Amino acid sequence: MLMLPGLAHHPRIQLVACADPRPEARIRFTADFDAPSYAEFGELCDDPNVEAIYLATPHQFHAAQVARAAEARKHILVEKPLAVTLAEAASMVERARAAGVHLMVGHSHAQDGPVLAARRLIASGEVGAPRLMTALNYTDFLYRPRRAEELDTSQGGGVVFSQGAHQVDVVRLLGGGLVRSVRAMTGAWDPARPTEGAYAAFLTFADGAAASLTYSGYGRFDSDVFLDWVGEMGQRKDPGRHGLARAALAGLPDAAAEAALKASRTYGAPGQPPGLPPLEPPEFHNQFGLVIASCEQADLRLTAQGVEVHGDAARRLRKAPLPAVPRGEVWDALCTAVLDGIPPLQDGAWGMATLEVCLAILQSAREGREIALHHQVAPKGP
Amino acid sequence: MLMLPGLAHHPRIQLVACADPRPEARIRFTADFDAPSYAEFGELCDDPNVEAIYLATPHQFHAAQVARAAEARKHILVEKPLAVTLAEAASMVERARAAGVHLMVGHSHAQDGPVLAARRLIASGEVGAPRLMTALNYTDFLYRPRRAEELDTSQGGGVVFSQGAHQVDVVRLLGGGLVRSVRAMTGAWDPARPTEGAYAAFLTFADGAAASLTYSGYGRFDSDVFLDWVGEMGQRKDPGRHGLARAALAGLPDAAAEAALKASRTYGAPGQPPGLPPLEPPEFHNQFGLVIASCEQADLRLTAQGVEVHGDAARRLRKAPLPAVPRGEVWDALCTAVLDGIPPLQDGAWGMATLEVCLAILQSAREGREIALHHQVAPKGP
Ligand SMILES: NC(=O)c1ccc[n+]([C@@H]2O[C@H](COP(=O)([O-])OP(=O)(O)OC[C@H]3O[C@@H](n4cnc5c(N)ncnc54)[C@H](O)[C@@H]3O)[C@@H](O)[C@H]2O)c1
Ligand SMILES: NC(=O)c1ccc[n+]([C@@H]2O[C@H](COP(=O)([O-])OP(=O)(O)OC[C@H]3O[C@@H](n4cnc5c(N)ncnc54)[C@H](O)[C@@H]3O)[C@@H](O)[C@H]2O)c1
Repeated sequence: MLMLPGLAHHPRIQLVACADPRPEARIRFTADFDAPSYAEFGELCDDPNVEAIYLATPHQFHAAQVARAAEARKHILVEKPLAVTLAEAASMVERARAAGVHLMVGHSHAQDGPVLAARRLIASGEVGAPRLMTALNYTDFLYRPRRAEELDTSQGGGVVFSQGAHQVDVVRLLGGGLVRSVRAMTGAWDPARPTEGAYAAFLTFADGAAASLTYSGYGRFDSDVFLDWVGEMGQRKDPGRHGLARAALAGLPDAAAEAALKASRTYGAPGQPPGLPPLEPPEFHNQFGLVIASCEQADLRLTAQGVEVHGDAARRLRKAPLPAVPRGEVWDALCTAVLDGIPPLQDGAWGMATLEVCLAILQSAREGREIALHHQVAPKGP
Repeated sequence: MLMLPGLAHHPRIQLVACADPRPEARIRFTADFDAPSYAEFGELCDDPNVEAIYLATPHQFHAAQVARAAEARKHILVEKPLAVTLAEAASMVERARAAGVHLMVGHSHAQDGPVLAARRLIASGEVGAPRLMTALNYTDFLYRPRRAEELDTSQGGGVVFSQGAHQVDVVRLLGGGLVRSVRAMTGAWDPARPTEGAYAAFLTFADGAAASLTYSGYGRFDSDVFLDWVGEMGQRKDPGRHGLARAALAGLPDAAAEAALKASRTYGAPGQPPGLPPLEPPEFHNQFGLVIASCEQADLRLTAQGVEVHGDAARRLRKAPLPAVPRGEVWDALCTAVLDGIPPLQDGAWGMATLEVCLAILQSAREGREIALHHQVAPKGP
């Protein structure tokens, strides 16, 4: 539902088929796009009209489905996190490589316009190398309606897998990708939702830079105040609303009711307005909380409009160009890879490296020590 | 100059003597307070009218002067950091103990009203234990005029000793004091000012809590934007001013000119308006950047007015009572110790523990590893 507006309206993309086990999703897809929809993922892979697959299934299916898609020689954009274990991730990377298809991870908030603009600014040499990055995000993630496995860390549940994937991606992209070590703590403070709802992590990079990450999904402090009340999706938010996510869950009797509430918001669920979402060109960028990167010659602060560059003598806002469709940067990157043959910035190896950091956050918190990393890669491309 | 307004106007304090090697400071003191001023610190200690000494000399003199004051059985409030080495700190604590005098460290921003209010709130049990704290502060500290030794880490220069002492104190006070380990990086990005201008640190506490600290004194991004443009001293700030500290230094020929500029702002310097500073009751609290403490049942955000409590259902501001004189909390604590015999929250052992964290930040950055701590204490008192 978050990705459909951009996907449906992107000028270089045509939706030619889908797969979903839910019949209501298939019925709506065929109505919306006049195209086949399959009950089995394998059928989608074998459809000769399909060039690339956007895989937005729950984490635990990513590995096997990427393998199946690669077997059918389809390019793949898989939702974050790439997978739940490093072994899965490595095998996904290897299968895509062997099949000669692009494997990309996204949407990631590292693809938000301001992050990409900051990366370009850093790459230009104008502000020197990043030395110290701070990223913090306080949301209500843990209290949005969930499937049961999303609250079970062993199945990829909790904020480290789902939200760490974004925050780690952002600082890795700005910092050059090569994380050397991770020291972290995690918090699971609500026995009714027994997975990580918060974490803090200290990352060191191969070149001596460092990043401090703080995340809480407990729905208390809301760091969108630092983004002038623009929300994660670039939408305007009402600062007066507080605790709504918790309140909406509070009345539900059990996990099944919660999963049903989540499902009711999914594509094809009854009661949703029929037809394609209209194209609403974005007013602000997506964002993932407060991000400040201190470089040798300037501090960069990301906003929902672009990059604030705080130099020695002055500060100025460098606006980042807004995408034509919501989250257009992701679809642009997919098209550039699949149609123009340019390797994506955030490929499978990149996603595996981000997953390694997330797993190290969990391990460091569990074992109370610093974890050294071994699968880090620099971002590809310009 | 920062402390004099509160000191001169505190209802329970009388300034009866001073010591300073600078004749102009002594002349002005005698004029302002009609009281003796000594060229030698030892003379001040031996003055029978003196009950307690506020020691605001450069770091490197703290240890020997505390020893001398203790020998004369005077209570001591010493500026942060307590000392530059742990050996010095331990001997200061021991000398004060042997002499039976109070040794306190301050002003520290952990004594700001909102920090104390947050500590009381935590102690009340209302919000559960703190689990994850974030503190960040971006200032122009490195570009304020300095004496040469303030830019030499081996003599206690740089932001870790001078500013870390505040930031560490704040999270230690909120988190219960007992830091277990430190992982950190430091930044020295300006060869013309070859000491640490920035750091990031990850602290773990004995009870499993953690704190992420970020500090930059490079005068680029200014985190007072997060405090509604109230500055460190509780003063209103003009958001349009940027880079003034750097600009003021840029024209100076050498270190001597810079030291002279610093001296020209010190007590007794020519050209300063004569007489006591008028009593201006504070409008806002002092602050030391953004501080958010996620507790088990609420997130606390410190502001220049008090503590924003972000709970499950609502957020509210708990105003902290403003002191009657600037930085009055410090003087209140001194009087409570010296006149009422109540041991201070932030005594010598407390200051030594904060110094240990600062030294561990430097060591962790230098050696690239996590440092275990051994001298941590809980805050005394209610
Ligand atoms: N990038 C982002 O901003 C973002 C936001 C939300 C979710 N996600 C990611 O998207 C993925 C899905 O999460 P969600 O919250 O949308 O889940 P969801 O339960 O809302 O949707 C999952 C969809 O996959 C379908 N599905 C389930 N099993 C399938 C199978 N075997 N084959 C084909 N389709 C199947 C479901 O019917 C449903 O339509 C996760 O990996 C999550 O991390 C990313
Ligand atoms: N808590 C705060 O907000 C804060 C702010 C600034 C400084 N400080 C601390 O105060 C201390 C002094 O720093 P500063 O920047 O004010 O320095 P400064 O150079 O401005 O002032 C030092 C004062 O000590 C005097 N002095 C020097 N040697 C002396 C001696 N041997 N005996 C007696 N007096 C002597 C000097 O003449 C001067 O008056 C440092 O430890 C610093 O960390 C604290």
